[in-house]
Amino acid sequence: MIIVMNSRATDKEIDLVVERLTTVGLKAHVSRGASRTIIGVIGDKKQITNFNVETLPGVVKSIAVTDDYKLVSREFQEEDTIVDVGGITIGGNQVVVMAGPCAVESREQLLMAADMVKKAGAQFLRGGAYKPRTSPYAFQGLEEEGLKFLAEARDATGLKVVTEVIDVESIPVVSHYADMLQIGSRNMQNYQLLKAVGRNNKPVLLKRGLSATINEWLNAAEYILSEGNPNVILCERGIRTFETYTRNTLDLSAVAAVKNISHLPVIVDPSHATGIWRLVQPMSKAAIAAGADGLIVEVHPDPAQALSDGKQSLTPENFTTLMGEIGSIAAAVGKRL
Amino acid sequence: MIIVMNSRATDKEIDLVVERLTTVGLKAHVSRGASRTIIGVIGDKKQITNFNVETLPGVVKSIAVTDDYKLVSREFQEEDTIVDVGGITIGGNQVVVMAGPCAVESREQLLMAADMVKKAGAQFLRGGAYKPRTSPYAFQGLEEEGLKFLAEARDATGLKVVTEVIDVESIPVVSHYADMLQIGSRNMQNYQLLKAVGRNNKPVLLKRGLSATINEWLNAAEYILSEGNPNVILCERGIRTFETYTRNTLDLSAVAAVKNISHLPVIVDPSHATGIWRLVQPMSKAAIAAGADGLIVEVHPDPAQALSDGKQSLTPENFTTLMGEIGSIAAAVGKRL
Amino acid sequence: MIIVMNSRATDKEIDLVVERLTTVGLKAHVSRGASRTIIGVIGDKKQITNFNVETLPGVVKSIAVTDDYKLVSREFQEEDTIVDVGGITIGGNQVVVMAGPCAVESREQLLMAADMVKKAGAQFLRGGAYKPRTSPYAFQGLEEEGLKFLAEARDATGLKVVTEVIDVESIPVVSHYADMLQIGSRNMQNYQLLKAVGRNNKPVLLKRGLSATINEWLNAAEYILSEGNPNVILCERGIRTFETYTRNTLDLSAVAAVKNISHLPVIVDPSHATGIWRLVQPMSKAAIAAGADGLIVEVHPDPAQALSDGKQSLTPENFTTLMGEIGSIAAAVGKRL
Amino acid sequence: MIIVMNSRATDKEIDLVVERLTTVGLKAHVSRGASRTIIGVIGDKKQITNFNVETLPGVVKSIAVTDDYKLVSREFQEEDTIVDVGGITIGGNQVVVMAGPCAVESREQLLMAADMVKKAGAQFLRGGAYKPRTSPYAFQGLEEEGLKFLAEARDATGLKVVTEVIDVESIPVVSHYADMLQIGSRNMQNYQLLKAVGRNNKPVLLKRGLSATINEWLNAAEYILSEGNPNVILCERGIRTFETYTRNTLDLSAVAAVKNISHLPVIVDPSHATGIWRLVQPMSKAAIAAGADGLIVEVHPDPAQALSDGKQSLTPENFTTLMGEIGSIAAAVGKRL
Repeated sequence: MIIVMNSRATDKEIDLVVERLTTVGLKAHVSRGASRTIIGVIGDKKQITNFNVETLPGVVKSIAVTDDYKLVSREFQEEDTIVDVGGITIGGNQVVVMAGPCAVESREQLLMAADMVKKAGAQFLRGGAYKPRTSPYAFQGLEEEGLKFLAEARDATGLKVVTEVIDVESIPVVSHYADMLQIGSRNMQNYQLLKAVGRNNKPVLLKRGLSATINEWLNAAEYILSEGNPNVILCERGIRTFETYTRNTLDLSAVAAVKNISHLPVIVDPSHATGIWRLVQPMSKAAIAAGADGLIVEVHPDPAQALSDGKQSLTPENFTTLMGEIGSIAAAVGKRL
Repeated sequence: MIIVMNSRATDKEIDLVVERLTTVGLKAHVSRGASRTIIGVIGDKKQITNFNVETLPGVVKSIAVTDDYKLVSREFQEEDTIVDVGGITIGGNQVVVMAGPCAVESREQLLMAADMVKKAGAQFLRGGAYKPRTSPYAFQGLEEEGLKFLAEARDATGLKVVTEVIDVESIPVVSHYADMLQIGSRNMQNYQLLKAVGRNNKPVLLKRGLSATINEWLNAAEYILSEGNPNVILCERGIRTFETYTRNTLDLSAVAAVKNISHLPVIVDPSHATGIWRLVQPMSKAAIAAGADGLIVEVHPDPAQALSDGKQSLTPENFTTLMGEIGSIAAAVGKRL
Repeated sequence: MIIVMNSRATDKEIDLVVERLTTVGLKAHVSRGASRTIIGVIGDKKQITNFNVETLPGVVKSIAVTDDYKLVSREFQEEDTIVDVGGITIGGNQVVVMAGPCAVESREQLLMAADMVKKAGAQFLRGGAYKPRTSPYAFQGLEEEGLKFLAEARDATGLKVVTEVIDVESIPVVSHYADMLQIGSRNMQNYQLLKAVGRNNKPVLLKRGLSATINEWLNAAEYILSEGNPNVILCERGIRTFETYTRNTLDLSAVAAVKNISHLPVIVDPSHATGIWRLVQPMSKAAIAAGADGLIVEVHPDPAQALSDGKQSLTPENFTTLMGEIGSIAAAVGKRL
Repeated sequence: MIIVMNSRATDKEIDLVVERLTTVGLKAHVSRGASRTIIGVIGDKKQITNFNVETLPGVVKSIAVTDDYKLVSREFQEEDTIVDVGGITIGGNQVVVMAGPCAVESREQLLMAADMVKKAGAQFLRGGAYKPRTSPYAFQGLEEEGLKFLAEARDATGLKVVTEVIDVESIPVVSHYADMLQIGSRNMQNYQLLKAVGRNNKPVLLKRGLSATINEWLNAAEYILSEGNPNVILCERGIRTFETYTRNTLDLSAVAAVKNISHLPVIVDPSHATGIWRLVQPMSKAAIAAGADGLIVEVHPDPAQALSDGKQSLTPENFTTLMGEIGSIAAAVGKRL
């Protein structure tokens, strides 16, 4: 931590800051510049985090120098994490595609969707059984019945199943049916839930919160890893900005940034990011070109009849086209689909 | 809902949209303008919400005309809701002040804080026993022990107690000790938690999410009211914007806006909004002038030693000064402290 | 500036950074911590600004420690700047109110508006003769004719005139008719224009850019002061955020923040900030309570007929009510209207 | 425009709105739904834009149904615009790359940079002679001398020259030396400047404003086209969001969106968007995959010595690598470099 003193700070004020630091066992490096004094703080991280200096006289501000997370950082682990989900690996040379409807609506809808996405070449089936919705009056999901349909679709197609878990209570039932647990955007800072999936042994797909910084996103992953579960896949799904043409703003720079500062795999959800099916295809290609390890895409047998997110769902035909195009981009960046 | 057609949309495309609407029981009002056709949709709200038209040929976009929430709106209930918490009313003519440390750190710290805020004139004691923290390595709260100290402080001072509940599991124990349950910003869209406090009989303080629109915030409140609990107090606490000088950007227009469109009481948290203790005093005054029904303020016996949020905590002396100033502003807007 | 090295940075990499700094005449303070090395840089500010270290091996990032601006800072000048505009002072104990239509539309409209705002107690008449509009097809202003009406209204009422200058070319003509030049939000970083008004002797009202940080806003003011014109009044008018209910998000914390870090007067424009006339009254009161030195408010004889911004304009009746309420708030914070 | 009435609006209030509309020559379509009345407004666009209804009793809000711009829209012109700059076409099948230093610093620096980017395969040389800088104390550019160096570099290499024009006054001199005029982000809503380059015959590179919506960006282009200059190339360069890890947030969805709603070419500036040279390569590839027609990239012979933006500049070696990778992506989307 760096403490910036006021240009008019007195020696007494500077001494008080140093004294306070020393009292709690921290070391102070005082640099007296031409215009002002800067104090560098060295010592135990936790001690520093809990030290509040802004309230002392003569202090302008303090600046944190390093990040809070550790296990998820590339400084801690240099080589890429590759997550194995029943033989499908995420984070290596193969681009992974997860596809399916936003919500599991019925047995027929789901089996038809599963069959279609399997034929088009996806490796995972996605579909929500528990749906967090902005309005209490919107369709909230089929719950355990939906999970059963997902498991049935897996048995029929060989696809792996990824589905959202929305509270600690339902972790056992979702883990029973699914191959991978999804933490939704709205729950990215639901720390009880993060700790609980950290104690579970299923891989976790951690979506970035709507307004989470990259730092907060990595700290959320740190919650999971710090409880013992190393199998975390990050998912960029658009952030909230002033732009209203798209549902959110897809932040592909975050994909490239996370690849630099963390060893965890990162996939992209172009459907929720854009909210517009016409933009899913170009953004999927862009995601793979930016270095994403995979995609999670909404596909519905009949988007116009979907109970949620129909606007952003691909038809099976469009999804098949998309898979072909992604293959070309993957090849261009030295990967395979 | 309004459907905007492409200026080159054919009659066949327009007819298809109308046909689709009719099939699901909705009525279409077709307006053919000079440059393009607009279709107004009338019928059951749920039906409309689930109808996806963007995927049909010739359609540019659909525009929602009305809001999803109902019970929280002033159109539904014209007169102000006044919440009674053991004799203290929120939402009427009296400005209510909740104060105390960010986190309950020890029995001594809390009792000292309670005594000080009581003397300065606050009606509620605030303090977190369960602390959601960005980093898993930061202080996470004293949990039930902290709740016991809060209850003891209430017995000693007569202050009401408001404290955060972070999951469904801990609602019973928090309800046992507290007078009002707080839903934190990160949980504003934790719908399981919202529904659960909606089935509880304690008043709920619902903080606005970091990047929640006013519409989403009111929908979150609608979750609670729709489960049977009408005693919801909204709390504006700053939104996430590009500005980094302050921790968040306090959105006081939202207070005035919510007063227009909803009947629920609204209070303001200037401490988390600004993150800077020097700005708490002017923003508290501004909040009351904007029409807020009260404040929730962080006060710590020794901010420099606080285990969390010391930067933004007032000393007891500053809090006492603040209370005097708020009294003057309250009087200027026809209220009393 | 602080340079943060990678935790695995070698001595050779650290030495290279130090060598580079020394070469350009800067001094390096190396702090070797338990987990990583931090290098503090001391020396000429301009030299530091132009030094790029991120491209060197082993460097994680650099962090600026101090701000770029100087003349506008309270560290440079402790006492408040009070701007005198023909006998009306801004920045002292008196709350100043500038009011009038968004655009000058006709002689009749303007003279009527001027008469009304004068009677209600305003000290300044506002009104745009040159109108920057999002669409090229919207009303663009009466230009010099509008300026003449403004001058006529001043002669008739004694109000001071503030109006926008949109390019370097029109500074002479606007200066001829107006008492104060307004730089609009869209031009806050039009540096040619800032330098030109800095060489002029008329006071300048500098609106904050739509997405300008406080730091950028103060740097924009620094452009004006550095050219010799010390008479700058800042104007907070709402920033662009994700919230769409209001036109912008009024950032009153910025008013309080600027009062701490700068000596310049700050006023607030609640009309453009909210875009909703119903919110102008509560936000005006909040602004004064937050410490603003004044207000600039849109008032139109008949808002429903306004050629621009009718939605956010007050009727003369509402403005008169507002003036009464502001008087009470001003008194509550120890000022007078 | 759609007018939404309050659910309690009286017939008298509805009639008043209709009467007002009729008075100014607009037609009203009244739809009385179960819960509220909606009024559709048909007629002259300009008339509608200037009609303010929010101030009338019983009105909740009005909603604009169509966009303001016309000439730039794909509804107006279906086929893609292809801009020809001295034989280099932008907007067709060829990916165009513009590269060079942020600022022209010296003759040597520029000629070396031009030579290097030419060899790597770029078609345009970029470089700022007039530099808008946040601080008045930062390097402001070599002005006309810089333009001369650019022209000399063109003569030496055959590269086309694109450079920024920062005010109306300097359009003649910049046009004299450059092949394409760049309007920077901070000037995207400098309407005087837009109109002036609209009356000029040089192609214009229009950068998106820092916080400009897609709609405002297209309206800015409309200003140029409406004055007679059809040769506009849009440039996405990152928008301002809450994320601070990157300098801005590159909005590639905007590229895909603009391709849908406009016929104008769109290129991407990954250097200013990310502010981090390590992210320029992945974002360049992502941009081409998303459908961009080209790139504008900062390249400096020695980034660590750059007078501005060194952090985000590529070395010539990295740029050469980038060109190879872009070629592969271009091929994968059916284009060529």
